Amino acid sequence: MKNLKYGIAIFPSKEIQDVANSYRKRYDPNYKNIPPHITLKERFKVNTDEIDQLAKELNKIAADMEPFEIEIHKVSSFSPVTNTVYLKVAPNESLTYLNEKMHQGIFPSEQQYAFVPHITISQDLSEDEHSDVYGSMKMLTFDLKDTVDRFQLLYQLEDGTWTVYETFKFGQ
Amino acid sequence: MKNLKYGIAIFPSKEIQDVANSYRKRYDPNYKNIPPHITLKERFKVNTDEIDQLAKELNKIAADMEPFEIEIHKVSSFSPVTNTVYLKVAPNESLTYLNEKMHQGIFPSEQQYAFVPHITISQDLSEDEHSDVYGSMKMLTFDLKDTVDRFQLLYQLEDGTWTVYETFKFGQ
Repeated sequence: MKNLKYGIAIFPSKEIQDVANSYRKRYDPNYKNIPPHITLKERFKVNTDEIDQLAKELNKIAADMEPFEIEIHKVSSFSPVTNTVYLKVAPNESLTYLNEKMHQGIFPSEQQYAFVPHITISQDLSEDEHSDVYGSMKMLTFDLKDTVDRFQLLYQLEDGTWTVYETFKFGQ
Repeated sequence: MKNLKYGIAIFPSKEIQDVANSYRKRYDPNYKNIPPHITLKERFKVNTDEIDQLAKELNKIAADMEPFEIEIHKVSSFSPVTNTVYLKVAPNESLTYLNEKMHQGIFPSEQQYAFVPHITISQDLSEDEHSDVYGSMKMLTFDLKDTVDRFQLLYQLEDGTWTVYETFKFGQ
């Protein structure tokens, strides 16, 4: 019996991941710990004995979903709360629904921040670096679209990197 | 329609991954491109339109499997073929069976090397570095065991990192 740190995320299309990584490789020290992603549930601790019960519940959540579209048009920042710059995922009921389901029932309910669907491209920069980076990116526009048909349960290794434990495909 | 580079691998337990990463972080330039893994099928190109057919076939292969044990007791090297040093996975019929199934039927059959189940911990070192590293590691003994109950289909991003596309659990 051991507690591992788990998280739940969506990996968008390779195209969107390649765009995100072109920025992450310069501005995000977390760059190679996990592929570009939309977090649905932040890191939470669960006993390895209990994770398969959570996985069953995630299976049910995924089974009730249908694939849905996401769109990305611009960059935004969580400043002044944190210096995180991100690709803003346009408001999306399906993402909000998934986030809510994953904080109810048998799931730990804590959530540090209100849910804002995003793909982080820069974080942990100094105030000045953040101003520079965000200043140069906030004028950018994108026309990125993807169909989401699955999410992933991951766990974190001792060195901070993440490994996928299981994929949950919608409608199965 | 786009060709992506796919691969198929097993991620062993967090314990084994942590051991592997303690070496990889020093000796493997591929360290953060993918978590520690046992490759079942080396990188192959498939059209994104065709991958879900392959995934269906992988589902069938996984459905017929039962969880099996793997053991790791020592370090070995592929030298002089390549300077890759690895955690040697003890000979295992289930791994061999999976490797064979993934090179038959609708799967590309090419395989650069004979199948030797392993977890790479050092690669792309100079001849001298390899001698030093392997010399210091070949006396080590391990007593690592794990139950394998799934494998993963991954694709490679432009920067060389890998993203999991789907997990296949045995007997489902």
